[in-house]
Amino acid sequence: MEYSRIVLASRPEGRVSENNFRVESGILPRPAKGEVLARVLYLSLDPYMRGRMDAGKSYAPAVEIGETMEGRAVAEVLESNDPAFAPGDLVLGSFGWASHGVLPAAGLMRVDPDLAPPSTALGVLGMPGFTGWLGLEAFGRPQKGETLVVGAATGAVGSMVGQLARLRGLRAVGVAGGPEKCDFAVKELGFDACLDHRAAPDSATLRKQLAQACPDGVDVYFENVGDKTLEAVLPLMNVGGRIPVCGMIGWYDLGALGAGGGTGRNMLPLAWRTILVQRLAVQGFIITDHYHRFGEFLTEVAPLVRDGRIAWHEDVAEGLEAAPQAFMNLLAGRNFGKQIVKVAQ
Amino acid sequence: MEYSRIVLASRPEGRVSENNFRVESGILPRPAKGEVLARVLYLSLDPYMRGRMDAGKSYAPAVEIGETMEGRAVAEVLESNDPAFAPGDLVLGSFGWASHGVLPAAGLMRVDPDLAPPSTALGVLGMPGFTGWLGLEAFGRPQKGETLVVGAATGAVGSMVGQLARLRGLRAVGVAGGPEKCDFAVKELGFDACLDHRAAPDSATLRKQLAQACPDGVDVYFENVGDKTLEAVLPLMNVGGRIPVCGMIGWYDLGALGAGGGTGRNMLPLAWRTILVQRLAVQGFIITDHYHRFGEFLTEVAPLVRDGRIAWHEDVAEGLEAAPQAFMNLLAGRNFGKQIVKVAQ
Repeated sequence: MEYSRIVLASRPEGRVSENNFRVESGILPRPAKGEVLARVLYLSLDPYMRGRMDAGKSYAPAVEIGETMEGRAVAEVLESNDPAFAPGDLVLGSFGWASHGVLPAAGLMRVDPDLAPPSTALGVLGMPGFTGWLGLEAFGRPQKGETLVVGAATGAVGSMVGQLARLRGLRAVGVAGGPEKCDFAVKELGFDACLDHRAAPDSATLRKQLAQACPDGVDVYFENVGDKTLEAVLPLMNVGGRIPVCGMIGWYDLGALGAGGGTGRNMLPLAWRTILVQRLAVQGFIITDHYHRFGEFLTEVAPLVRDGRIAWHEDVAEGLEAAPQAFMNLLAGRNFGKQIVKVAQ
Repeated sequence: MEYSRIVLASRPEGRVSENNFRVESGILPRPAKGEVLARVLYLSLDPYMRGRMDAGKSYAPAVEIGETMEGRAVAEVLESNDPAFAPGDLVLGSFGWASHGVLPAAGLMRVDPDLAPPSTALGVLGMPGFTGWLGLEAFGRPQKGETLVVGAATGAVGSMVGQLARLRGLRAVGVAGGPEKCDFAVKELGFDACLDHRAAPDSATLRKQLAQACPDGVDVYFENVGDKTLEAVLPLMNVGGRIPVCGMIGWYDLGALGAGGGTGRNMLPLAWRTILVQRLAVQGFIITDHYHRFGEFLTEVAPLVRDGRIAWHEDVAEGLEAAPQAFMNLLAGRNFGKQIVKVAQ
């Protein structure tokens, strides 16, 4: 079967550009025994993909030049050579940036369209939502009455973290880029406050604004952005504070994470001193280590999503060819909510 | 009673100098009810005192200009107005940098001269030894067969950490300044290897040497130095590694911890990325939060010290007036073992 896919044409030097991608077409084989052929409906775009575009050691291997860009998608089964699935079933799997795929049935999860719209399996009820829930529960250890700060507050992870924190009786303060996102965070997601990092010329200004929004200091900083937000929050951390670290999108596209380190002042001594003086617990985590708790997440969060106590928002790009530009938007914070590519109806 | 003391004459700008201290004499009152008058035998010099010389927020208030420098000492009771102590008793208390002091009996701990030489109450069996034990046990979570790295390996904390790690079946690799210390760490303290950070021109060279000394990577990095050692160790951390943070002497005297941050490349993005990718647990701690476990420490470690399975080494300066220079030596790593000032016989 003929299909199209987007491959990694070259590795980015600094910021990602269109030239790093190439659309190709090819022929898919028929599914072998135990395999399934499916057509992709929704492709998920996530910040972690930026790491896969670079050579070198990360927590997962890099995408090779000429390989299909990695990614999870919700797809409809066209042909099944495994008793677990039948044509018409919806599945979640690692189809990559492609219109169709053939994958082992054992690597697919069934998507229940009666639970919620299928695309939510990529966002609020999928990996990003689970990342927010797990990081908060396991490493944020939220206590009623405490204050939490999270960046990318309207993003797929940040919006879950903030809303869960509110439900657990914490003060939730978000940081986001632009007044529309901040408005949305407060009015639709229920954050107690949300600060616009684009309106703050530097981390010192943002810190002053955060200090006003967090009169009792910060107990949990859920780290998914790094950069200016991290520098602004660190001096506000209370004794015994917790910092779950699941990402740092603010640094991904700047080359700051490469061997040369970032430019400017060395902030590591100050960060380390704060960790010592305030007795902070900083814990990195990768969500794929924790999927044994995915059922626990769904049990709690699916009803909250269904009855509207947890809101969600998607930014939908149309057509597979739109994926590169949508991904660049995501890295620049120009998306609004969970970034999806609608590959087919 | 006439006594002498060393006061903070001025706050250091950058490195500590003799001019920051002044010797004064004064008159001590007779001990009031519940108080004890004692003469200091041994004064402890510890890296944390550098933080007390600066104005501003730390985990304990700064020493004010004109006040006696803070410090713990072993002293002999001369006169007691409390039933808990009698003349001739040895006590541990916060006498500061002084020849004599009057303190409430409630704030003193008895020192048992039959347990070990009294000065060990300031080192291997005192706060520094306890810091090494607690940080390793509570936050290092050592597992047999793992690899541990600790800086200032012949110092009061580092030598405890390395020896305990060996006793628990870990590979213990030290970092220290100069070939004599490294020899001592391996031959007398039993480290599996010890690297001379002074012989390494930069952190990249030190990292290569550490990589050879730690063929299975690093599971626990006990942080008490920061700076070049931290930068060298971070890329070697294994998945699930732990970093207890009790100090960062390598940065204390460089101004790197002030509001301006350090100079040079910004190492925070790289450090943060390592925490994420390797799922590290970084935990700051202040030993005064943990004294409820001091008895547990003594129960385990005092017998190990007595039968020689944990060795210790002191660097003894003679006379109270020698304290400022000895303290500057400590900050520069020119001491060899636990730094003590012998104030009186």
